[in-house]
Amino acid sequence: MTEFPYSSALIVGAGPGLSASLARQLAECGVKVALAARNTDKLNKLAGETGALTFAADAAQPASVAALFDDVAAAIGAPEVVIYNASGRLRGALAELDPAAVEQAIAISAYGGFLVSQQAARRMLAHGRGAILFTGATASIKGYAESAAFAMGKFALRGLAQSAARELGPKGIHVAHFIIDGGIRSQMRREDPAKPDATLDPGAIARTYINVLLQHRSAWSQEIEMRPWTESF
Amino acid sequence: MTEFPYSSALIVGAGPGLSASLARQLAECGVKVALAARNTDKLNKLAGETGALTFAADAAQPASVAALFDDVAAAIGAPEVVIYNASGRLRGALAELDPAAVEQAIAISAYGGFLVSQQAARRMLAHGRGAILFTGATASIKGYAESAAFAMGKFALRGLAQSAARELGPKGIHVAHFIIDGGIRSQMRREDPAKPDATLDPGAIARTYINVLLQHRSAWSQEIEMRPWTESF
Amino acid sequence: MTEFPYSSALIVGAGPGLSASLARQLAECGVKVALAARNTDKLNKLAGETGALTFAADAAQPASVAALFDDVAAAIGAPEVVIYNASGRLRGALAELDPAAVEQAIAISAYGGFLVSQQAARRMLAHGRGAILFTGATASIKGYAESAAFAMGKFALRGLAQSAARELGPKGIHVAHFIIDGGIRSQMRREDPAKPDATLDPGAIARTYINVLLQHRSAWSQEIEMRPWTESF
Amino acid sequence: MTEFPYSSALIVGAGPGLSASLARQLAECGVKVALAARNTDKLNKLAGETGALTFAADAAQPASVAALFDDVAAAIGAPEVVIYNASGRLRGALAELDPAAVEQAIAISAYGGFLVSQQAARRMLAHGRGAILFTGATASIKGYAESAAFAMGKFALRGLAQSAARELGPKGIHVAHFIIDGGIRSQMRREDPAKPDATLDPGAIARTYINVLLQHRSAWSQEIEMRPWTESF
Repeated sequence: MTEFPYSSALIVGAGPGLSASLARQLAECGVKVALAARNTDKLNKLAGETGALTFAADAAQPASVAALFDDVAAAIGAPEVVIYNASGRLRGALAELDPAAVEQAIAISAYGGFLVSQQAARRMLAHGRGAILFTGATASIKGYAESAAFAMGKFALRGLAQSAARELGPKGIHVAHFIIDGGIRSQMRREDPAKPDATLDPGAIARTYINVLLQHRSAWSQEIEMRPWTESF
Repeated sequence: MTEFPYSSALIVGAGPGLSASLARQLAECGVKVALAARNTDKLNKLAGETGALTFAADAAQPASVAALFDDVAAAIGAPEVVIYNASGRLRGALAELDPAAVEQAIAISAYGGFLVSQQAARRMLAHGRGAILFTGATASIKGYAESAAFAMGKFALRGLAQSAARELGPKGIHVAHFIIDGGIRSQMRREDPAKPDATLDPGAIARTYINVLLQHRSAWSQEIEMRPWTESF
Repeated sequence: MTEFPYSSALIVGAGPGLSASLARQLAECGVKVALAARNTDKLNKLAGETGALTFAADAAQPASVAALFDDVAAAIGAPEVVIYNASGRLRGALAELDPAAVEQAIAISAYGGFLVSQQAARRMLAHGRGAILFTGATASIKGYAESAAFAMGKFALRGLAQSAARELGPKGIHVAHFIIDGGIRSQMRREDPAKPDATLDPGAIARTYINVLLQHRSAWSQEIEMRPWTESF
Repeated sequence: MTEFPYSSALIVGAGPGLSASLARQLAECGVKVALAARNTDKLNKLAGETGALTFAADAAQPASVAALFDDVAAAIGAPEVVIYNASGRLRGALAELDPAAVEQAIAISAYGGFLVSQQAARRMLAHGRGAILFTGATASIKGYAESAAFAMGKFALRGLAQSAARELGPKGIHVAHFIIDGGIRSQMRREDPAKPDATLDPGAIARTYINVLLQHRSAWSQEIEMRPWTESF
């Protein structure tokens, strides 16, 4: 088995789905894991299971993100892997969306991704290594009707990921963007027994993230899409 | 000559380049034109030449945009064509960008586009017709190094345009996104005599916008790219 | 009205739909038009209406294409505009397609496009000007189930168009690729009165081709998509 | 360690680079491997090292491909994994390319991919499982000047891969397309010591292929790009 190349990770926008699977698999690889969310109550069980530390932070506030990185560095060292999973999902007809809610959705999906990757880049550049992973969605590449706010945020995050990859890759930092093209299995979104594996198993998604972190720098992936075998696309 | 299908237009983010050419050509088609910018001083000469009316507005402020549409409607009728040209261009290394400047760049490039298209959609839906045009750039489809903020705004605007097209097209509103893939000729960016037409002539760009406005609804374009003949891409 | 910049045109894969509309509109612009098809019987009526000349040719045979260009040059001069509309449409499950039919479909959709654009390029390069237009379809950018053969041909044609644009553009030749994203109205595909303009009017498509031919070289489009206002995409 | 889900594999277009690495890694996973190429002489050393069997076949000839699959099935069972690596690389100005060479390049890059995936699909559909992998290049998504023939073949192969994925995915067959965006390290293309890992290590590429074969069907990737950390894109 390849030795895992990183020893510390920060997952921002942590919740009980994909982030929990990532935390478990990273912990199994021997990585010290920090989980950040606006409300850390929901993370206590996961933290207990995996030994991860939890941090309260608002990804869309510069001072909060800067403090988060300082706190994480003090606790487990500057994170060598940073994963941005926060997402501002908002639906509604263009004519009826609340502007303040749209602003907030873009702030969470995209501006938070900027703030987090900026703090990550500053620390990683000092060492010439690290990995920054962004989680996208179908809306990252296709703007659907009644989904303007979500598409704006996710398109913007993809633009950030491309720019960061071109800028930081040659400096030793692996930047990758994942397009999750389907619904992730969860307590709320259960499997239909008649259609097995028609939702994405968060553990299966996380496995691909781990494999991207294991990629040799001569053959890095920058964008990876995933969807269930039955998904139309 | 086909009769021009619209009688009023609002150009937001109006300046002396592409917006001026659009204003002139729309006026030549018999369209009443309103020009909006944060600072209208620079628009006076153009207004004098074309008979366009000028309006001061901040595209990133909901109340300012709502007032702009009310004022324009009172002056020339609800605009049947709305063109969003404002753009928050910002360069710099990811690690060094000022977060407040990034937030502002996204607000101008993308959130303003949302606010303006929302006001436009509300009025156009009442009549079942109209056109909303968005101006993009190379950064709309490619995130370059040291260009994260501009890519975020322009990617987001493209996501908005796609979503609006899918939502509003079947309701009679033509939504199109233009990718200007090269530098626009201007006072600041003059032609190199040794390389004729290596910058985009704003009048030539405007001509394509006008032709898209003339398209029959059975064959609408949603995305159109333009670049100089000599541009590598 | 802008004077039309070209005086002769060749349309390959000419039939009663889009090609007929292109022939009519080019003739109205004062352009001498040549129409080529494997079977020219179906072109007689159109030729009579527009004054176009007809030529029998097999676009997938190098010698036939070379002879076609010689014959057209002798009749109306070397064509300054060349439009490739031939298409090898073939549907069927991947496991059941006839390999010979697939080979033929790729030959018509893509290899013929190469042969025709090669002959066009040779003549246009001598004058440093001209335009080569390719007609694509939804299948140019999306490979659908049971549509492997059509997708292969149309993807290949798009690759050819991009390569030709990058190579020939800086030499004065405008290369453009059109994505017709929907069904074209025809004798076989009539309008549903309950859904007006849900099929593309060939005259409306042709109008956009003409406008692309009129574009100034400082702001050329390379790819243009068109679809009906009601089309989902 | 996850048990490897497939027991037999056929690599078409086998050579000493990526295909050799794939053969070695598949063999290490306990997979019986068949290697096919027009000329099998160059495969003898690899076959000796890995225990792979070699087969002479012309991927662009239907009868040859059908015989190949029969022979492989007789020797190691119907292949559960089929990888198409053959590629018709051809450079030259559009006006000067030899039509016969272009036809041949498309036949190898794309038509062979069709023939091979058709034979694969027929056998895999009977069992409701299997994997078909296609190897693309930068030219799969970007048509460069003087690269029309290569772009046509690689674009076509991508269209085939998308179509096959949409058609065969819901029937249990994982179809994936890999974009190798850079030069693969080889005897001919050695590393520049001043720029370490600026060429793709074939073993590193193969590792990502293996990981895609290991993906759970609830989260399959359809397209994966890889490039060196220093590559501009």
